[in-house]
Amino acid sequence: MSDNLRDLQSRQEQFIDERDWNQFHTPKSLAMAISVESNELMELFQWHDNLPAEAYAEDSEVCDGVKDELADIAIYSLSMASAFDFDLSEIIETKLEKNEQRFDLAESEEIREELSKWKQESD
Amino acid sequence: MSDNLRDLQSRQEQFIDERDWNQFHTPKSLAMAISVESNELMELFQWHDNLPAEAYAEDSEVCDGVKDELADIAIYSLSMASAFDFDLSEIIETKLEKNEQRFDLAESEEIREELSKWKQESD
Amino acid sequence: MSDNLRDLQSRQEQFIDERDWNQFHTPKSLAMAISVESNELMELFQWHDNLPAEAYAEDSEVCDGVKDELADIAIYSLSMASAFDFDLSEIIETKLEKNEQRFDLAESEEIREELSKWKQESD
Amino acid sequence: MSDNLRDLQSRQEQFIDERDWNQFHTPKSLAMAISVESNELMELFQWHDNLPAEAYAEDSEVCDGVKDELADIAIYSLSMASAFDFDLSEIIETKLEKNEQRFDLAESEEIREELSKWKQESD
Repeated sequence: MSDNLRDLQSRQEQFIDERDWNQFHTPKSLAMAISVESNELMELFQWHDNLPAEAYAEDSEVCDGVKDELADIAIYSLSMASAFDFDLSEIIETKLEKNEQRFDLAESEEIREELSKWKQESD
Repeated sequence: MSDNLRDLQSRQEQFIDERDWNQFHTPKSLAMAISVESNELMELFQWHDNLPAEAYAEDSEVCDGVKDELADIAIYSLSMASAFDFDLSEIIETKLEKNEQRFDLAESEEIREELSKWKQESD
Repeated sequence: MSDNLRDLQSRQEQFIDERDWNQFHTPKSLAMAISVESNELMELFQWHDNLPAEAYAEDSEVCDGVKDELADIAIYSLSMASAFDFDLSEIIETKLEKNEQRFDLAESEEIREELSKWKQESD
Repeated sequence: MSDNLRDLQSRQEQFIDERDWNQFHTPKSLAMAISVESNELMELFQWHDNLPAEAYAEDSEVCDGVKDELADIAIYSLSMASAFDFDLSEIIETKLEKNEQRFDLAESEEIREELSKWKQESD
Protein backbone atom coordinates (compact mmCIF):
# COMPACT_ATOMS: atom_id res chain seq x y z
CA MET A 1 0.00 0.00 0.00
CA SER A 2 1.19 3.50 -0.74
CA ASP A 3 0.77 6.36 1.69
CA ASN A 4 2.36 8.82 -0.68
CA LEU A 5 -0.29 11.37 -1.58
CA ARG A 6 1.45 12.49 -4.77
CA ASP A 7 1.34 8.89 -6.02
CA LEU A 8 -2.36 8.62 -5.19
CA GLN A 9 -3.03 11.90 -7.03
CA SER A 10 -1.20 10.61 -10.15
CA ARG A 11 -3.07 7.33 -10.00
CA GLN A 12 -6.44 9.14 -9.94
CA GLU A 13 -5.30 11.38 -12.83
CA GLN A 14 -4.47 8.32 -14.90
CA PHE A 15 -7.82 6.71 -14.04
CA ILE A 16 -9.67 9.80 -15.29
CA ASP A 17 -7.46 10.23 -18.38
CA GLU A 18 -7.95 6.63 -19.50
CA ARG A 19 -11.74 7.07 -19.36
CA ASP A 20 -11.71 10.47 -21.08
CA TRP A 21 -13.64 11.92 -18.16
CA ASN A 22 -11.49 15.07 -17.85
CA GLN A 23 -14.10 16.94 -19.88
CA PHE A 24 -16.51 16.60 -16.92
CA HIS A 25 -13.93 17.59 -14.29
CA THR A 26 -14.66 21.31 -14.20
CA PRO A 27 -14.12 23.23 -10.94
CA LYS A 28 -17.86 23.87 -10.58
CA SER A 29 -18.85 20.21 -11.00
CA LEU A 30 -15.99 18.87 -8.86
CA ALA A 31 -16.87 21.28 -6.04
CA MET A 32 -20.46 20.00 -6.27
CA ALA A 33 -19.21 16.41 -6.16
CA ILE A 34 -17.23 17.06 -2.96
CA SER A 35 -20.28 18.70 -1.39
CA VAL A 36 -22.58 15.84 -2.45
CA GLU A 37 -20.24 13.22 -0.98
CA SER A 38 -19.76 15.19 2.25
CA ASN A 39 -23.54 15.31 2.63
CA GLU A 40 -23.74 11.54 2.18
CA LEU A 41 -21.20 11.37 5.01
CA MET A 42 -23.34 13.70 7.17
CA GLU A 43 -26.45 11.67 6.48
CA LEU A 44 -24.95 8.77 8.47
CA PHE A 45 -25.27 10.92 11.62
CA GLN A 46 -28.36 12.88 10.57
CA TRP A 47 -30.76 12.63 13.53
CA HIS A 48 -28.23 11.48 16.12
CA ASP A 49 -26.97 13.39 19.14
CA ASN A 50 -23.42 14.66 18.96
CA LEU A 51 -21.79 11.39 20.00
CA PRO A 52 -18.07 10.56 20.01
CA ALA A 53 -16.76 8.19 17.32
CA GLU A 54 -16.43 5.45 19.95
CA ALA A 55 -20.24 5.16 20.01
CA TYR A 56 -20.05 3.77 16.46
CA ALA A 57 -17.17 1.33 16.98
CA GLU A 58 -19.41 -1.76 16.72
CA ASP A 59 -21.60 -0.37 13.95
CA SER A 60 -20.10 -1.75 10.76
CA GLU A 61 -22.65 0.01 8.56
CA VAL A 62 -21.56 3.41 9.88
CA CYS A 63 -17.85 2.49 9.85
CA ASP A 64 -17.99 1.22 6.26
CA GLY A 65 -20.05 4.24 5.25
CA VAL A 66 -17.49 6.63 6.75
CA LYS A 67 -14.67 4.91 4.84
CA ASP A 68 -16.61 4.97 1.60
CA GLU A 69 -17.67 8.62 1.76
CA LEU A 70 -14.29 9.85 3.07
CA ALA A 71 -12.62 8.11 0.14
CA ASP A 72 -14.95 9.82 -2.36
CA ILE A 73 -14.35 13.22 -0.76
CA ALA A 74 -10.56 12.73 -0.82
CA ILE A 75 -10.52 11.40 -4.40
CA TYR A 76 -12.60 14.30 -5.77
CA SER A 77 -10.32 16.66 -3.82
CA LEU A 78 -7.33 15.09 -5.59
CA SER A 79 -9.09 15.63 -8.93
CA MET A 80 -9.85 19.26 -8.07
CA ALA A 81 -6.17 19.82 -7.26
CA SER A 82 -5.18 18.13 -10.54
CA ALA A 83 -7.62 20.26 -12.56
CA PHE A 84 -5.71 23.33 -11.32
CA ASP A 85 -2.27 21.66 -11.54
CA PHE A 86 -1.93 21.91 -7.77
CA ASP A 87 -0.24 19.34 -5.54
CA LEU A 88 -2.68 18.42 -2.74
CA SER A 89 0.06 17.31 -0.33
CA GLU A 90 1.72 20.72 -0.63
CA ILE A 91 -1.60 22.51 -0.10
CA ILE A 92 -2.27 20.48 3.06
CA GLU A 93 1.20 21.00 4.50
CA THR A 94 1.10 24.77 3.89
CA LYS A 95 -2.24 25.03 5.70
CA LEU A 96 -1.13 22.86 8.64
CA GLU A 97 1.78 25.26 9.13
CA LYS A 98 -0.50 28.28 8.90
CA ASN A 99 -2.91 26.80 11.45
CA GLU A 100 -0.07 25.99 13.84
CA GLN A 101 1.01 29.62 13.77
CA ARG A 102 -2.47 31.14 13.80
CA PHE A 103 -3.87 29.16 16.72
CA ASP A 104 -1.34 29.58 19.50
CA LEU A 105 -2.19 28.10 22.88
CA ALA A 106 -3.83 31.29 24.25
CA GLU A 107 -6.03 31.62 21.19
CA SER A 108 -6.98 27.94 21.19
CA GLU A 109 -7.86 28.08 24.91
CA GLU A 110 -10.21 30.99 24.20
CA ILE A 111 -11.94 29.03 21.43
CA ARG A 112 -12.24 26.00 23.72
CA GLU A 113 -13.89 28.08 26.43
CA GLU A 114 -16.25 29.78 24.01
CA LEU A 115 -17.36 26.40 22.60
CA SER A 116 -17.79 24.81 26.03
CA LYS A 117 -20.92 26.97 26.44
CA TRP A 118 -22.59 24.76 23.84
CA LYS A 119 -21.91 21.41 25.46
CA GLN A 120 -24.93 19.39 26.50
CA GLU A 121 -25.38 19.35 30.30
CA SER A 122 -25.44 15.91 31.79
CA ASP A 123 -27.29 16.31 35.05
CA MET B 1 7.88 19.20 2.29
CA SER B 2 6.29 15.86 3.05
CA ASP B 3 3.93 14.15 0.65
CA ASN B 4 3.38 11.26 3.02
CA LEU B 5 -0.28 11.30 3.98
CA ARG B 6 0.23 9.26 7.13
CA ASP B 7 2.68 11.89 8.37
CA LEU B 8 0.22 14.66 7.59
CA GLN B 9 -2.51 12.80 9.46
CA SER B 10 -0.25 12.41 12.54
CA ARG B 11 0.70 16.06 12.40
CA GLN B 12 -2.96 17.13 12.40
CA GLU B 13 -3.69 14.73 15.29
CA GLN B 14 -0.90 16.32 17.32
CA PHE B 15 -2.18 19.81 16.50
CA ILE B 16 -5.66 18.91 17.82
CA ASP B 17 -4.33 17.03 20.88
CA GLU B 18 -2.14 19.93 21.97
CA ARG B 19 -5.14 22.28 21.91
CA ASP B 20 -7.50 19.82 23.65
CA TRP B 21 -9.93 20.13 20.76
CA ASN B 22 -10.60 16.40 20.45
CA GLN B 23 -13.75 16.87 22.52
CA PHE B 24 -15.27 18.80 19.58
CA HIS B 25 -14.16 16.31 16.92
CA THR B 26 -17.29 14.17 16.87
CA PRO B 27 -18.30 12.47 13.60
CA LYS B 28 -21.43 14.61 13.30
CA SER B 29 -19.57 17.92 13.72
CA LEU B 30 -16.61 16.88 11.53
CA ALA B 31 -18.97 15.81 8.73
CA MET B 32 -20.64 19.23 9.01
CA ALA B 33 -17.23 20.91 8.87
CA ILE B 34 -16.32 19.08 5.64
CA SER B 35 -19.67 20.06 4.12
CA VAL B 36 -19.30 23.72 5.20
CA GLU B 37 -15.81 23.95 3.67
CA SER B 38 -16.90 22.23 0.45
CA ASN B 39 -19.69 24.79 0.14
CA GLU B 40 -17.19 27.62 0.56
CA LEU B 41 -15.29 25.98 -2.31
CA MET B 42 -18.48 25.84 -4.42
CA GLU B 43 -19.26 29.46 -3.69
CA LEU B 44 -16.20 30.49 -5.73
CA PHE B 45 -17.98 29.19 -8.86
CA GLN B 46 -21.55 29.95 -7.73
CA TRP B 47 -23.12 31.82 -10.66
CA HIS B 48 -20.56 30.89 -13.31
CA ASP B 49 -21.05 28.68 -16.32
CA ASN B 50 -19.41 25.27 -16.20
CA LEU B 51 -15.95 26.47 -17.28
CA PRO B 52 -12.72 24.45 -17.36
CA ALA B 53 -10.09 25.21 -14.70
CA GLU B 54 -7.96 26.95 -17.35
CA ALA B 55 -10.48 29.84 -17.36
CA TYR B 56 -9.34 30.66 -13.82
CA ALA B 57 -5.57 30.41 -14.39
CA GLU B 58 -5.00 34.17 -14.14
CA ASP B 59 -7.49 34.70 -11.31
CA SER B 60 -5.39 34.62 -8.16
CA GLU B 61 -8.41 35.13 -5.91
CA VAL B 62 -10.05 31.96 -7.22
CA CYS B 63 -6.75 30.00 -7.25
CA ASP B 64 -5.90 30.99 -3.67
CA GLY B 65 -9.48 30.27 -2.62
CA VAL B 66 -9.35 26.78 -4.13
CA LYS B 67 -6.10 26.01 -2.28
CA ASP B 68 -7.47 27.33 0.99
CA GLU B 69 -10.78 25.45 0.88
CA LEU B 70 -9.27 22.21 -0.48
CA ALA B 71 -6.81 22.27 2.42
CA ASP B 72 -9.63 22.67 4.95
CA ILE B 73 -11.61 19.82 3.36
CA ALA B 74 -8.56 17.52 3.38
CA ILE B 75 -7.55 18.42 6.94
CA TYR B 76 -11.04 17.79 8.36
CA SER B 77 -11.10 14.52 6.40
CA LEU B 78 -7.83 13.54 8.10
CA SER B 79 -9.43 14.37 11.47
CA MET B 80 -12.52 12.33 10.66
CA ALA B 81 -10.30 9.34 9.79
CA SER B 82 -8.36 9.83 13.04
CA ALA B 83 -11.56 10.01 15.11
CA PHE B 84 -12.36 6.49 13.87
CA ASP B 85 -8.73 5.28 14.03
CA PHE B 86 -8.74 4.88 10.25
CA ASP B 87 -5.76 5.55 7.98
CA LEU B 88 -6.90 7.92 5.22
CA SER B 89 -4.21 6.82 2.75
CA GLU B 90 -5.41 3.21 3.06
CA ILE B 91 -9.04 4.27 2.58
CA ILE B 92 -8.14 6.20 -0.58
CA GLU B 93 -6.07 3.41 -2.07
CA THR B 94 -8.76 0.80 -1.44
CA LYS B 95 -11.34 2.96 -3.20
CA LEU B 96 -9.08 3.75 -6.16
CA GLU B 97 -8.69 0.01 -6.68
CA LYS B 98 -12.42 -0.54 -6.40
CA ASN B 99 -13.13 2.22 -8.91
CA GLU B 100 -10.58 0.80 -11.36
CA GLN B 101 -12.35 -2.54 -11.28
CA ARG B 102 -15.88 -1.18 -11.25
CA PHE B 103 -15.56 1.23 -14.15
CA ASP B 104 -14.09 -0.81 -16.95
CA LEU B 105 -13.72 0.83 -20.36
CA ALA B 106 -17.14 -0.29 -21.67
CA GLU B 107 -18.89 0.99 -18.56
CA SER B 108 -16.99 4.28 -18.59
CA GLU B 109 -17.78 4.83 -22.27
CA GLU B 110 -21.48 4.40 -21.52
CA ILE B 111 -21.30 6.99 -18.73
CA ARG B 112 -19.44 9.38 -21.04
CA GLU B 113 -22.11 9.08 -23.70
CA GLU B 114 -24.94 9.49 -21.23
CA LEU B 115 -23.36 12.67 -19.84
CA SER B 116 -22.60 14.11 -23.28
CA LYS B 117 -26.34 14.79 -23.62
CA TRP B 118 -25.96 17.51 -21.02
CA LYS B 119 -23.14 19.43 -22.67
CA GLN B 120 -23.89 22.99 -23.68
CA GLU B 121 -24.25 23.38 -27.45
CA SER B 122 -21.85 25.88 -28.97
CA ASP B 123 -23.55 27.01 -32.13
CA MET C 1 -47.72 41.21 5.53
CA SER C 2 -48.64 38.44 3.12
CA ASP C 3 -48.51 34.80 4.07
CA ASN C 4 -49.59 33.70 0.64
CA LEU C 5 -46.74 31.72 -0.85
CA ARG C 6 -47.89 32.19 -4.44
CA ASP C 7 -47.71 35.96 -3.93
CA LEU C 8 -44.21 35.68 -2.48
CA GLN C 9 -43.12 33.53 -5.45
CA SER C 10 -44.48 36.16 -7.91
CA ARG C 11 -42.77 38.95 -6.03
CA GLN C 12 -39.40 37.17 -6.22
CA GLU C 13 -39.96 36.49 -9.96
CA GLN C 14 -40.56 40.18 -10.54
CA PHE C 15 -37.45 41.10 -8.53
CA ILE C 16 -35.30 38.83 -10.70
CA ASP C 17 -36.96 39.90 -13.98
CA GLU C 18 -36.43 43.60 -13.29
CA ARG C 19 -32.71 43.02 -12.74
CA ASP C 20 -32.31 40.72 -15.76
CA TRP C 21 -30.84 38.04 -13.53
CA ASN C 22 -32.88 35.18 -14.99
CA GLN C 23 -29.92 34.29 -17.18
CA PHE C 24 -28.04 33.16 -14.04
CA HIS C 25 -30.97 31.22 -12.58
CA THR C 26 -30.13 27.82 -14.02
CA PRO C 27 -31.12 24.68 -12.07
CA LYS C 28 -27.46 23.80 -11.44
CA SER C 29 -26.57 27.22 -10.03
CA LEU C 30 -29.78 27.59 -8.01
CA ALA C 31 -29.28 24.16 -6.45
CA MET C 32 -25.76 25.26 -5.50
CA ALA C 33 -27.15 28.49 -4.02
CA ILE C 34 -29.60 26.56 -1.80
CA SER C 35 -26.78 24.27 -0.65
CA VAL C 36 -24.45 27.21 0.06
CA GLU C 37 -27.09 29.01 2.14
CA SER C 38 -28.01 25.84 4.04
CA ASN C 39 -24.36 25.41 4.93
CA GLU C 40 -24.24 28.98 6.25
CA LEU C 41 -27.21 27.99 8.40
CA MET C 42 -25.36 24.86 9.62
CA GLU C 43 -22.26 26.86 10.43
CA LEU C 44 -24.18 28.64 13.22
CA PHE C 45 -24.30 25.31 15.10
CA GLN C 46 -21.01 23.89 13.80
CA TRP C 47 -19.15 22.72 16.91
CA HIS C 48 -22.10 22.69 19.30
CA ASP C 49 -23.75 19.70 20.90
CA ASN C 50 -27.19 18.77 19.60
CA LEU C 51 -29.09 21.33 21.70
CA PRO C 52 -32.80 22.19 21.46
CA ALA C 53 -33.74 25.56 19.92
CA GLU C 54 -34.60 26.88 23.39
CA ALA C 55 -30.87 26.96 24.21
CA TYR C 56 -30.51 29.77 21.65
CA ALA C 57 -33.53 31.85 22.72
CA GLU C 58 -31.41 34.64 24.24
CA ASP C 59 -28.73 34.53 21.55
CA SER C 60 -29.76 37.25 19.10
CA GLU C 61 -26.81 36.54 16.80
CA VAL C 62 -27.96 32.95 16.28
CA CYS C 63 -31.65 33.93 16.04
CA ASP C 64 -30.98 36.66 13.46
CA GLY C 65 -28.67 34.32 11.58
CA VAL C 66 -31.34 31.61 11.42
CA LYS C 67 -33.88 34.10 10.03
CA ASP C 68 -31.43 35.42 7.48
CA GLU C 69 -30.28 32.03 6.16
CA LEU C 70 -33.76 30.46 6.22
CA ALA C 71 -35.00 33.40 4.12
CA ASP C 72 -32.23 32.87 1.56
CA ILE C 73 -32.95 29.13 1.36
CA ALA C 74 -36.68 29.76 0.89
CA ILE C 75 -36.18 32.53 -1.67
CA TYR C 76 -33.81 30.47 -3.82
CA SER C 77 -36.29 27.56 -3.53
CA LEU C 78 -39.00 29.87 -4.86
CA SER C 79 -36.69 30.79 -7.77
CA MET C 80 -35.94 27.14 -8.49
CA ALA C 81 -39.68 26.42 -8.64
CA SER C 82 -40.20 29.41 -10.95
CA ALA C 83 -37.38 28.31 -13.26
CA PHE C 84 -39.34 25.08 -13.85
CA ASP C 85 -42.76 26.82 -13.86
CA PHE C 86 -43.69 24.93 -10.70
CA ASP C 87 -45.83 26.32 -7.88
CA LEU C 88 -43.93 25.80 -4.61
CA SER C 89 -47.06 25.85 -2.43
CA GLU C 90 -48.52 22.99 -4.50
CA ILE C 91 -45.27 21.01 -4.27
CA ILE C 92 -45.20 21.41 -0.47
CA GLU C 93 -48.85 20.44 0.00
CA THR C 94 -48.48 17.33 -2.19
CA LYS C 95 -45.48 16.16 -0.15
CA LEU C 96 -47.15 16.86 3.22
CA GLU C 97 -50.01 14.60 2.10
CA LYS C 98 -47.59 11.91 0.93
CA ASN C 99 -45.71 12.03 4.25
CA GLU C 100 -48.94 11.79 6.26
CA GLN C 101 -49.84 8.63 4.38
CA ARG C 102 -46.38 7.12 4.32
CA PHE C 103 -45.53 7.53 7.99
CA ASP C 104 -48.46 6.04 9.86
CA LEU C 105 -48.25 5.82 13.63
CA ALA C 106 -46.74 2.30 13.70
CA GLU C 107 -44.06 3.26 11.20
CA SER C 108 -43.27 6.52 13.00
CA GLU C 109 -42.98 4.74 16.35
CA GLU C 110 -40.44 2.35 14.83
CA ILE C 111 -38.35 5.27 13.53
CA ARG C 112 -38.56 6.96 16.94
CA GLU C 113 -37.29 3.84 18.68
CA GLU C 114 -34.51 3.30 16.17
CA LEU C 115 -33.30 6.90 16.61
CA SER C 116 -33.51 6.79 20.40
CA LYS C 117 -30.41 4.54 20.34
CA TRP C 118 -28.41 7.60 19.30
CA LYS C 119 -29.48 9.92 22.10
CA GLN C 120 -26.74 11.15 24.41
CA GLU C 121 -26.90 9.50 27.83
CA SER C 122 -27.19 11.97 30.68
CA ASP C 123 -25.70 10.21 33.65
CA MET D 1 -55.13 23.30 -2.26
CA SER D 2 -53.81 25.88 0.17
CA ASP D 3 -51.17 28.40 -0.80
CA ASN D 4 -51.12 29.92 2.64
CA LEU D 5 -47.67 29.31 4.09
CA ARG D 6 -48.77 29.77 7.69
CA ASP D 7 -51.29 26.94 7.20
CA LEU D 8 -48.62 24.69 5.69
CA GLN D 9 -46.29 25.45 8.62
CA SER D 10 -49.07 24.52 11.12
CA ARG D 11 -49.83 21.34 9.23
CA GLN D 12 -46.19 20.25 9.37
CA GLU D 13 -46.05 21.10 13.11
CA GLN D 14 -49.05 18.88 13.72
CA PHE D 15 -47.52 16.06 11.66
CA ILE D 16 -44.35 16.16 13.79
CA ASP D 17 -46.23 16.54 17.10
CA GLU D 18 -48.46 13.54 16.43
CA ARG D 19 -45.40 11.37 15.83
CA ASP D 20 -43.47 12.71 18.85
CA TRP D 21 -40.56 13.58 16.55
CA ASN D 22 -39.99 17.07 18.04
CA GLN D 23 -37.22 15.60 20.17
CA PHE D 24 -35.16 15.09 16.98
CA HIS D 25 -35.90 18.54 15.56
CA THR D 26 -32.91 20.37 16.98
CA PRO D 27 -31.44 23.31 15.01
CA LYS D 28 -28.23 21.39 14.32
CA SER D 29 -30.00 18.32 12.91
CA LEU D 30 -32.59 20.33 10.94
CA ALA D 31 -29.85 22.45 9.35
CA MET D 32 -28.12 19.18 8.35
CA ALA D 33 -31.38 17.88 6.92
CA ILE D 34 -31.82 20.97 4.73
CA SER D 35 -28.24 20.64 3.52
CA VAL D 36 -28.63 16.91 2.79
CA GLU D 37 -31.82 17.50 0.77
CA SER D 38 -30.27 20.43 -1.14
CA ASN D 39 -27.38 18.16 -2.09
CA GLU D 40 -29.81 15.54 -3.38
CA LEU D 41 -31.26 18.34 -5.49
CA MET D 42 -27.78 19.29 -6.77
CA GLU D 43 -26.98 15.69 -7.60
CA LEU D 44 -29.64 15.79 -10.35
CA PHE D 45 -27.41 18.27 -12.25
CA GLN D 46 -24.06 16.95 -11.01
CA TRP D 47 -21.96 16.51 -14.15
CA HIS D 48 -24.09 18.61 -16.50
CA ASP D 49 -23.19 21.90 -18.09
CA ASN D 50 -24.97 24.97 -16.75
CA LEU D 51 -28.14 24.50 -18.79
CA PRO D 52 -31.39 26.47 -18.50
CA ALA D 53 -34.41 24.72 -16.94
CA GLU D 54 -35.98 24.40 -20.40
CA ALA D 55 -33.40 21.73 -21.26
CA TYR D 56 -35.06 19.46 -18.70
CA ALA D 57 -38.69 20.10 -19.71
CA GLU D 58 -39.14 16.61 -21.24
CA ASP D 59 -37.13 14.80 -18.57
CA SER D 60 -39.73 13.58 -16.10
CA GLU D 61 -37.09 12.00 -13.85
CA VAL D 62 -35.40 15.37 -13.34
CA CYS D 63 -38.72 17.25 -13.04
CA ASP D 64 -40.11 14.82 -10.45
CA GLY D 65 -36.78 14.86 -8.61
CA VAL D 66 -36.79 18.67 -8.44
CA LYS D 67 -40.32 18.66 -6.99
CA ASP D 68 -39.46 15.99 -4.46
CA GLU D 69 -36.25 17.59 -3.20
CA LEU D 70 -37.64 21.16 -3.21
CA ALA D 71 -40.56 19.91 -1.08
CA ASP D 72 -38.17 18.33 1.45
CA ILE D 73 -36.06 21.50 1.63
CA ALA D 74 -39.15 23.67 2.16
CA ILE D 75 -40.70 21.33 4.73
CA TYR D 76 -37.52 21.13 6.84
CA SER D 77 -37.27 24.93 6.57
CA LEU D 78 -40.80 25.18 7.97
CA SER D 79 -39.77 22.88 10.83
CA MET D 80 -36.65 24.97 11.52
CA ALA D 81 -38.82 28.11 11.71
CA SER D 82 -41.25 26.30 14.05
CA ALA D 83 -38.43 25.11 16.32
CA PHE D 84 -37.57 28.79 16.91
CA ASP D 85 -41.22 29.94 17.00
CA PHE D 86 -40.60 31.96 13.84
CA ASP D 87 -43.14 32.50 11.06
CA LEU D 88 -41.47 31.55 7.75
CA SER D 89 -43.77 33.73 5.62
CA GLU D 90 -42.78 36.78 7.69
CA ILE D 91 -39.07 35.90 7.39
CA ILE D 92 -39.37 35.60 3.61
CA GLU D 93 -41.29 38.85 3.18
CA THR D 94 -38.83 40.81 5.34
CA LYS D 95 -35.90 39.54 3.26
CA LEU D 96 -37.62 40.23 -0.08
CA GLU D 97 -38.07 43.85 1.05
CA LYS D 98 -34.45 44.06 2.17
CA ASN D 99 -33.23 42.67 -1.16
CA GLU D 100 -35.40 45.11 -3.12
CA GLN D 101 -33.80 48.02 -1.28
CA ARG D 102 -30.26 46.65 -1.25
CA PHE D 103 -30.03 45.79 -4.94
CA ASP D 104 -31.09 48.92 -6.76
CA LEU D 105 -30.82 48.93 -10.53
CA ALA D 106 -27.29 50.40 -10.66
CA GLU D 107 -26.02 47.80 -8.19
CA SER D 108 -27.76 44.93 -9.98
CA GLU D 109 -26.36 46.05 -13.35
CA GLU D 110 -22.85 45.96 -11.87
CA ILE D 111 -23.38 42.41 -10.60
CA ARG D 112 -24.74 41.37 -14.00
CA GLU D 113 -21.69 42.72 -15.78
CA GLU D 114 -19.29 41.13 -13.30
CA LEU D 115 -20.97 37.74 -13.74
CA SER D 116 -21.08 37.98 -17.54
CA LYS D 117 -17.30 37.40 -17.53
CA TRP D 118 -18.01 33.82 -16.50
CA LYS D 119 -20.44 32.92 -19.27
CA GLN D 120 -19.39 30.14 -21.61
CA GLU D 121 -18.39 31.42 -25.06
CA SER D 122 -20.41 29.91 -27.86
CA ASP D 123 -18.19 30.16 -30.89
